[in-house]
Order: sequence, then C-alpha cells, then structure tokens
Amino acid sequence: MADLPLILVTNDDGIFAPGIRTLVEEVKAFGRVLVVAPDKPQSAMGHAITIHSFLRLQKVELPGTVSGMTAGVEAWSCSGTPVDCVKLAIYKLLGGKRPDLLVSGVNHGSNISINVLYSGTMSAAVEGAMEGIPSIGFSLMDHGIEADFSQVRPVVRNVVANAIKQGIAAGTCLNVNIPRNQGTALKGIRVCRQAKANWEDEFETRLDPGHKEYYWLKGEFRSEDQGEDTDVWAVNNGYVSMVPVQYDMTAHHAIAQLNTWGHAIG
Amino acid sequence: MADLPLILVTNDDGIFAPGIRTLVEEVKAFGRVLVVAPDKPQSAMGHAITIHSFLRLQKVELPGTVSGMTAGVEAWSCSGTPVDCVKLAIYKLLGGKRPDLLVSGVNHGSNISINVLYSGTMSAAVEGAMEGIPSIGFSLMDHGIEADFSQVRPVVRNVVANAIKQGIAAGTCLNVNIPRNQGTALKGIRVCRQAKANWEDEFETRLDPGHKEYYWLKGEFRSEDQGEDTDVWAVNNGYVSMVPVQYDMTAHHAIAQLNTWGHAIG
Repeated sequence: MADLPLILVTNDDGIFAPGIRTLVEEVKAFGRVLVVAPDKPQSAMGHAITIHSFLRLQKVELPGTVSGMTAGVEAWSCSGTPVDCVKLAIYKLLGGKRPDLLVSGVNHGSNISINVLYSGTMSAAVEGAMEGIPSIGFSLMDHGIEADFSQVRPVVRNVVANAIKQGIAAGTCLNVNIPRNQGTALKGIRVCRQAKANWEDEFETRLDPGHKEYYWLKGEFRSEDQGEDTDVWAVNNGYVSMVPVQYDMTAHHAIAQLNTWGHAIG
Repeated sequence: MADLPLILVTNDDGIFAPGIRTLVEEVKAFGRVLVVAPDKPQSAMGHAITIHSFLRLQKVELPGTVSGMTAGVEAWSCSGTPVDCVKLAIYKLLGGKRPDLLVSGVNHGSNISINVLYSGTMSAAVEGAMEGIPSIGFSLMDHGIEADFSQVRPVVRNVVANAIKQGIAAGTCLNVNIPRNQGTALKGIRVCRQAKANWEDEFETRLDPGHKEYYWLKGEFRSEDQGEDTDVWAVNNGYVSMVPVQYDMTAHHAIAQLNTWGHAIG
C-alpha cells in the first residue's frame, strides 16, 4: 500500500462539491488519496494565499456515494484558499514530502483561456507545479451544482494514467477543460494553447436599505481568437482541451525592445 | 487638461500606505491621476476577484504631504482586491474607457521571481495588460511601513517616461523591483527574466484559548538560479530589475511531448 502513488486532491468549489467527489472516485484507482480542500467556495481566488490571518484544518468524512467510492480516503477541510490547501498539505500534513501527483477540481465551470489566471482550481495546480509535483486541473464547463460528470470520468482516467506513465514537463501543469454534456460523445483530447480572449465586464449597481450603492460584477467572456490550436476552439468543437501551463510569466519576446530604453536612473 | 494622459493608480497594501502616495506624487507630473485602491491590505491576493459578494467604492482624500503633492487627485477606496479595483475603475468609474497608463504599488516588499504570481500589486498590472492598458507594477524590497522611498522616485520617473514615450508590448506589463536603500546609488535598471526560485514554507502551529490548533504560514524564499539575466541577480547586485510579464501562460515548449499521449477517451 505504501508503494502506491500518493495523490493530493484539492479544488476551489469547496470540499463538499460534487466535482471533487467525482475526482476522488476516479483517482482512487491510481493510488492513495489525500484530500485537502477549502471549507467554502473559493472560486476566482486566483493565486491568493493567507498571510494576514491564520489557517485551520479540520478532518472530515467526504460524503459517501451509493457505491462507497470515497470510503478510506483521508480528507481535510481548510479555512483558506486553494493555494493554501496545497501548502498545508505539503508542509503541515505531509511534513514537507511531495505527493506523487496533484489533481484539482473537477471545477464546476470553465477555466479556458485567460480564466487560468482567475481560477482557484488552476492556481492550486500551478502551485503544485512550483513545488515540483506533476499537477493537473480539471474543469467541467457547467456551473450547475447538478452538473453531469459522466463524461468527465473517462477523461480523468485517461489524463491521470498518461501523467503517471509519461510525466509532466518540469515547470508546467495541465489545464484540462471538458465541454458540458450535450448528449453526444466527446471527440477526444486536443493539446492547445491558451486562446487570446477577454472579459467584457459590467457592474450592476444596487441600493442597500440605507440607500448606499453597492456593485455586483457581471462579465461576458469574449474570444476573437480564431486559432484552431486554441482551447476555445477545441471545446467549441466537441473536444476536451488540454493546455500546458507554465509559471514562468517572463515575456521573453519583449526583452529586446525594453533594452533600447534608457536605463540610467535620475 | 483633458488632453493629458489619464493614469490609474492602484496597489495591494491599501490606499493609505506610504508606497501608493509616493507613486501618486511621482506620476502626477505625467497626467491626470485616478486612484482606486483597496480599503485594507490585500497583499498576496494574487489575481483574486470578488464574485461571491458585492463591492463598495468610497471617495476619499489621500493623506496630503507637506508639499500638498496629492491635492487635486481623485481617489476611491474599494472593498475588494487589487484586480477588483482595476475592474471597478474601468467599468464603473470610467464607463468602459481605458486609462492611458496603469501603475501599481509602490509595494512595500519584493515581488521578484515567482512572487509575481502571489502579488496583488502585480496581478493588478497583469489585469491592466489584459485590458490593453500599458501597465507597470513597482515594488520596493523593504516591507517596513517606514521604508525609505527616496531611491524609488527617480526609478518611477524613468520607467513611466519611457512607457509613455515608447509603449509597452501588447499582452505584457512590467514588473519593476527596487532594492532597499542601503546608502549607495543604484547602478541602473536591468531588463531581466523571472528567476527560477521557490518558497520553502513552514507552518507555525499555535493553540487557541480553547486548545484548538491554528497555523501561520512562514516561508523562506530560495533562489538557486545563478543566471545573471534574472531579477534575483539584478537586485542582489545593486540594480533595479525590470521583467516583462505576459498573461499567456501556455508552455508552448511542452506541447510536442503532450501530443505523443493517447488522446482517445475511454
């Protein structure tokens, strides 16, 4: 048992979301499972960590399924962000030992394109990569709490099996997005680049009972990138998208132009 | 006056931090200034945005200096994260109009290397880049509330003047880190790549009055990247580091290997 890979599971929708239960059920076949996930929804928390307050961990039982597939899994809920969960798992629960694999999700909602930056799900995977752990974020493009995860399961099995067998390039993790179940079979997995896209945002203004304004963010995701090598194209055409994501954010192509600036100070 | 560039200023230490006042004082010479910054410290919030709650804006007076350098500046405090501040500035206060320049900081503390991912200061600049705004994050490598910003001022003037004159490459922003004042002149500005480094973390365990454990994150930053083209090398050798940062996180070099995986599902 001790020779089986140790798989760390986290997410950003919270430890009691159906998506993480699906993920646990599928990765259980590959090794021992440690779940450390937020005690409340932490969507769109990006790479936030908790430094102005303390953190708590609480051992919990994952809600069992009919088949009892989550039995025997060690699970902890954490008061912090998804990245806090990864740090606590490694540096508190595992005493500095790295798990053999980190999987994050399955997110209830899309993390294609620039959403990789906002996503707590993906930030946990990026943190895993920074710690030298092969890491994968999975997202289902359906926000609903009752989303249908049946098409997600074989995708998780495929990607996890490949990641364990072939490894993931150092300094990178994987961003896997699965289209919403529309009753047709998925065409396969396409390796993609992150599409160029943006959020056209809007704030809905409301008045509180004391007549003071407050604002709710409402955004519309827009991609005008027509590339067939993008994640947006893939999921819009019946494929699962898989983007290798790196945490070296250096824009190497921009260095030459900046070197023409005057760099003496004063 | 309407022809002067509109400069949006934000930070992650909060609107009343000395660092943002320094930045406002320096950029005022280049145009009209709109400040939208968090109403409390938001360090290490990464690219987090507020979607499970609402946001507030409150018009404030920036604390004036002896010379009154912050007079005439429109300033708003925001209940959200640094990225929320950028979105509210554009989509609420400016009605969708993009400012001509965004500057974030001056952060009280370092944002070299992988800290670009955790940093609220830099995430605000990245958000600016995503909105097509030339954006720069400035950080002074001194956490103290009484940090000496005198060496920061000419750096801000140099970089802002260049950015206005020469522009910043689309899809990128700048991460500028200034060494702590050690009584010697800075050697100049070096264009760098993000150093390969990591945080060796630790959690300090304490007991609350009810004897329940809680944890404080304590980390140590470690860079073993010896490259003289890195930001770590630059700041350790008396230079200001300037890294062009991109929000396309695709690891293009990893795509070929992933294409060898089996991609049929099931």
